[in-house]
Amino acid sequence: MDLPYPCLMFLADVDRVSAKTALGVAYWRPDACVGQLRLKGSEVDLGLADMSPAAAKAAGARSLLIGVANAGGFIPSHWEDVLVEALEAGLDLVSGLHTRLASLPRVRETAERLGRRLFEAREADPRFNVVAEGVKRTGQRLLTVGTDCAVGKMYAALALTKELKARGVNADFRATGQTGIFIAGSGAPIDAIVSDFVAGAAEALSPSAAVDHWDVIEGQGSLFHPAYAGVTLGLLHGSQPDAIVVCHDATRTAIDGLERFPTPSLAEAIDLNLRLARLTNPAVRAVGVSVNTSRLSPEAAAAYLNDAAEQLGLPCCDPVRASVAPIVDALLGGPARRDAA
Amino acid sequence: MDLPYPCLMFLADVDRVSAKTALGVAYWRPDACVGQLRLKGSEVDLGLADMSPAAAKAAGARSLLIGVANAGGFIPSHWEDVLVEALEAGLDLVSGLHTRLASLPRVRETAERLGRRLFEAREADPRFNVVAEGVKRTGQRLLTVGTDCAVGKMYAALALTKELKARGVNADFRATGQTGIFIAGSGAPIDAIVSDFVAGAAEALSPSAAVDHWDVIEGQGSLFHPAYAGVTLGLLHGSQPDAIVVCHDATRTAIDGLERFPTPSLAEAIDLNLRLARLTNPAVRAVGVSVNTSRLSPEAAAAYLNDAAEQLGLPCCDPVRASVAPIVDALLGGPARRDAA
Repeated sequence: MDLPYPCLMFLADVDRVSAKTALGVAYWRPDACVGQLRLKGSEVDLGLADMSPAAAKAAGARSLLIGVANAGGFIPSHWEDVLVEALEAGLDLVSGLHTRLASLPRVRETAERLGRRLFEAREADPRFNVVAEGVKRTGQRLLTVGTDCAVGKMYAALALTKELKARGVNADFRATGQTGIFIAGSGAPIDAIVSDFVAGAAEALSPSAAVDHWDVIEGQGSLFHPAYAGVTLGLLHGSQPDAIVVCHDATRTAIDGLERFPTPSLAEAIDLNLRLARLTNPAVRAVGVSVNTSRLSPEAAAAYLNDAAEQLGLPCCDPVRASVAPIVDALLGGPARRDAA
Repeated sequence: MDLPYPCLMFLADVDRVSAKTALGVAYWRPDACVGQLRLKGSEVDLGLADMSPAAAKAAGARSLLIGVANAGGFIPSHWEDVLVEALEAGLDLVSGLHTRLASLPRVRETAERLGRRLFEAREADPRFNVVAEGVKRTGQRLLTVGTDCAVGKMYAALALTKELKARGVNADFRATGQTGIFIAGSGAPIDAIVSDFVAGAAEALSPSAAVDHWDVIEGQGSLFHPAYAGVTLGLLHGSQPDAIVVCHDATRTAIDGLERFPTPSLAEAIDLNLRLARLTNPAVRAVGVSVNTSRLSPEAAAAYLNDAAEQLGLPCCDPVRASVAPIVDALLGGPARRDAA
């Protein structure tokens, strides 16, 4: 997907959790954003200049990107004025929501009239509409899994890929969500794929590769999420991971927005993910834990990570505060391997 | 969905496993079929008269129904001549495959020219495109689950519904696959739903009901199937079953078509289904096992069912050879409840 960057990042009027697409793209692809556009009620500031579509166009923007990942993936009708204004100002539109831009009559007609393009990241490439075969592929795979949604699975996968590459390891980040696809420029929008084909799409996303190659696959949802666990399981089975990294938010006690559902303990999350992953890769192992400790003091964060590491016998890192190097050490066989690389 | 019955059942050239749609509809809705149409290579005989589309039309048929559930749900190009011939003969078309009839140019154009209708059972009603909320609903739910695909989950659900109704219990069969939808006339084509919405569709399929009402929900796939376990898990979580019945084929040792994947033991299947189902309904219990023993002698079948019942402490029945009454006894609290009904 050849995305029309740089973009004007549309933050609409959502909270930080729903703005994770904007936050992710702005962090990992700062080159891709010339400014931000917020509606009244927005709780997010990317630190970019606030701009109208016309001002963004003048500043070099080629598109308006909807930086939102809301539950249900819908486009509320009060955003349509902005989308139409962006088209009128000369910008293409980029969206990763379930609601298709082309399904909105005003948006479609304006784009057609002006010759603008509508990019839909959740429209899966037909090559992902396949039934999984369960055949083991060559090459090695790491999948990030989570205790909940929005706990840093994409961030951890990108940080792990960066660290692997820095050590000279042949590695690729494999995007499975809209934000990851916007960052990488390609991927499989796994939660938008027809359910019969989810595991098959995961197989197609990380094809056979050289034996020392690592695919680092962005996880989706959580086995403990009552709405999305099926998506998570299909991705887990199709990815056939050799290694998993469990991602968690240190201060979250319940599934986001579903207070009745407690987040699992890290031990429980590791246990269930490994049990289910063994179906397609009996050799799967957990190699580390990635924790968002942003709501803890530095001292509390360090204590949390030390306690978890001791209890689980695995490296536990906050990839934003520090590095994922200890997890990559464990993945590649310990620090000795680092020196050899 | 107001299906144009009776139909001419199209068996194409597939084996018995892929003809399960035809076999199911012919068994449960004999009123709905006037004849069968087989291609060279067909291994299935429904015991209906072989007819051309024109002969079926003369015999009162209103449609040709594609009685096939193949892996991938595709329509091979060599079936198209028959579909066009049926349209020309005056029949509507009914399909439950992933490939949409309307996506085949010759079929679409012929239907448009002649004013015939194309029924697509795998086109989900938009009311099923919702994110699950995980809120417990009133009323009671039984879900059939399986050690594999095509082990009798739909048959068991229909037999259980029939037995419940015979005892005066307020019960509904809830279809989740094309065959079930063809039998019941409505349902959610769960494996064709966008993966994010599978659990939500399952919630919408069995809404809140009277406290003594039972929804008997047709299961899909298997938690032990490397391609479809995610579909199974989404359905399990959204259904929030109070009771599960595990379905199995007594002579199957590996997942159909995937010899590298052994079928689980019944104990293993019960354990994993209960563990995962507890997320949305901690009170879930297994109430019985439904076994396809058609490839065993009557004596071997009886021995198999007795052994399994003793080992598991649950009623084990072959719903085709005998009745599911012992499972309904366990569901409703033992035979005493039967007398009271």
